[in-house]
Amino acid sequence: MRPEIAALIDTLLPRQHSRPEIDLLYRMMRDYPSRGGKGLRSELLLMTGAAYDGDPEAAAWLAAAIELFQNWVLIHDDIEDDSEERRGKPALHRAHGLPLALNAGDALHVYMWDAVFRSHVEAARNEFLEMVHRTAEGQHVDLAWVAHHEWNLTDVDYLEMVRLKTSYYTVVSPLRLGMLTAGLEPHAAFTSAGLDLGAAFQIRDDVLNLVGDAATYGKEIAGDLLEGKRTLIVLEWLREARPRERGAFLDQMRRPRDGKDPDVIADALRSILASNAVTRAQHVADDLAARGLATLEGALSDAPNRASAERIVDLVRSLATREA
Amino acid sequence: MRPEIAALIDTLLPRQHSRPEIDLLYRMMRDYPSRGGKGLRSELLLMTGAAYDGDPEAAAWLAAAIELFQNWVLIHDDIEDDSEERRGKPALHRAHGLPLALNAGDALHVYMWDAVFRSHVEAARNEFLEMVHRTAEGQHVDLAWVAHHEWNLTDVDYLEMVRLKTSYYTVVSPLRLGMLTAGLEPHAAFTSAGLDLGAAFQIRDDVLNLVGDAATYGKEIAGDLLEGKRTLIVLEWLREARPRERGAFLDQMRRPRDGKDPDVIADALRSILASNAVTRAQHVADDLAARGLATLEGALSDAPNRASAERIVDLVRSLATREA
Repeated sequence: MRPEIAALIDTLLPRQHSRPEIDLLYRMMRDYPSRGGKGLRSELLLMTGAAYDGDPEAAAWLAAAIELFQNWVLIHDDIEDDSEERRGKPALHRAHGLPLALNAGDALHVYMWDAVFRSHVEAARNEFLEMVHRTAEGQHVDLAWVAHHEWNLTDVDYLEMVRLKTSYYTVVSPLRLGMLTAGLEPHAAFTSAGLDLGAAFQIRDDVLNLVGDAATYGKEIAGDLLEGKRTLIVLEWLREARPRERGAFLDQMRRPRDGKDPDVIADALRSILASNAVTRAQHVADDLAARGLATLEGALSDAPNRASAERIVDLVRSLATREA
Repeated sequence: MRPEIAALIDTLLPRQHSRPEIDLLYRMMRDYPSRGGKGLRSELLLMTGAAYDGDPEAAAWLAAAIELFQNWVLIHDDIEDDSEERRGKPALHRAHGLPLALNAGDALHVYMWDAVFRSHVEAARNEFLEMVHRTAEGQHVDLAWVAHHEWNLTDVDYLEMVRLKTSYYTVVSPLRLGMLTAGLEPHAAFTSAGLDLGAAFQIRDDVLNLVGDAATYGKEIAGDLLEGKRTLIVLEWLREARPRERGAFLDQMRRPRDGKDPDVIADALRSILASNAVTRAQHVADDLAARGLATLEGALSDAPNRASAERIVDLVRSLATREA
């Protein structure tokens, strides 16, 4: 995240309270934002604003708002998935208990709206409404599959879920918000490009979760398997797996996280890595990224600031091929 | 809740989705609002708007927003307290599991902001920011005492907590928002009156939780004891209780809800009801209500619509003395 955006968030969030309990709430709200996220979404928004000669102050507040969105959502996601770690440290609900962490996520949520209002970009209010609606719908689909033990899913099901869960807040809305800071109607092509690119980004994230380096990835490796996450990789592997492997894996998936057998999960991970499921998923991500990038480059052809437009394409390309 | 406010919420929330999973999310968002809350907060807002000849359409949207606030907060509160019931039916997370319910609360939260924006009362945005900030701070204090096994608390501690947790969204903000619909700066006295009246309302709620009738109260009787809630009643009883009773109770309070012994809790409830703690708490509530009502009547003396102003006072008086 750019230092000036981190500084804006720092000025927006309350710092101290005479009641020690409320002081703890303030520290909890500052915890995830201070763990040093990469700030990809705010960067994309700021670059798009710059490409269209948008208002820098408005863009800075909206960039802060989208980082605050990411952070309150992560607090709640970590509870919903019962994740152990976030950015290399214990998840907030593991450090402070579920009730306090859930409430701190809600408290942080409203500071996101505060930042949106401070941008004075009226159209940004509806953009944030749409972005949160779509993200919550995608998150719901993902969680409903886990809750209802649903594994009878196609690639189309997966892609519909991640477009909602990841693409809007990661790519579509940052592009659109950037253009709104210039008082311009966002290009419709930003949406189709962003849906493809966000899905490519999420598939890459799923791949890294299985094959990545824990130190740079910041989450537990294979955590998605323990959390029973549906990914393109696992869905493909399940279609190819021998009945006994498939049966053993699905049996584990019916168990709560604490009841899962690490040896069986490790067997499944080895089998997944030995299959061509990872390579195939990466190919799907590459195809989506290529199509999204072509659409995005076309849409950005009217941007007056060419250097910024090119940096957007470079950033987005790096997201779909990142190593961490 | 007035039928026209329920109808506004009905038009605002999404109804159907072609994906059955997302359709379930929509039904979950409509669940608590359809359980028929009393709508006291929206009523207070609408009456205050009418007393100052405010814009009825703006008041209706803000009334819908405050009901949506109450509902998303209740979904999250029920998770935080692991409550069993809400308005006579299973709490949302008990019906659908914690992850889906937490996410549905977030999804409902943003529809609150949608309703605020539709009021076109610009000053309402900051009022909602302040209201959610204060409510989350109060909720945090309440939850932190539970999480940290803190029972060394005075009446002052309790009153500071409930002013934040209950008074802002129950009385202070409804009064202020009503005046804002008339384009007027809210009276400062609304805040001091609302803080007293909201605390009186919460103490009455605490009393009803122990002595109320389950059918009309809509929550489990003595649920507060099982959830380890700090109330004026319990704090007073603990100061008077014999060391053995006190020790047995505090031992139970250190256990998770499922580990509590119903017989020991029932003993404590009998002892509490036999003590004068309930009567004393009700006296504190009565004193706060009397002071708050006097302040409120003074502040409302400039309201052009006298009939509405008088109905506000009647409604608020009934809140602090209600039987359910």
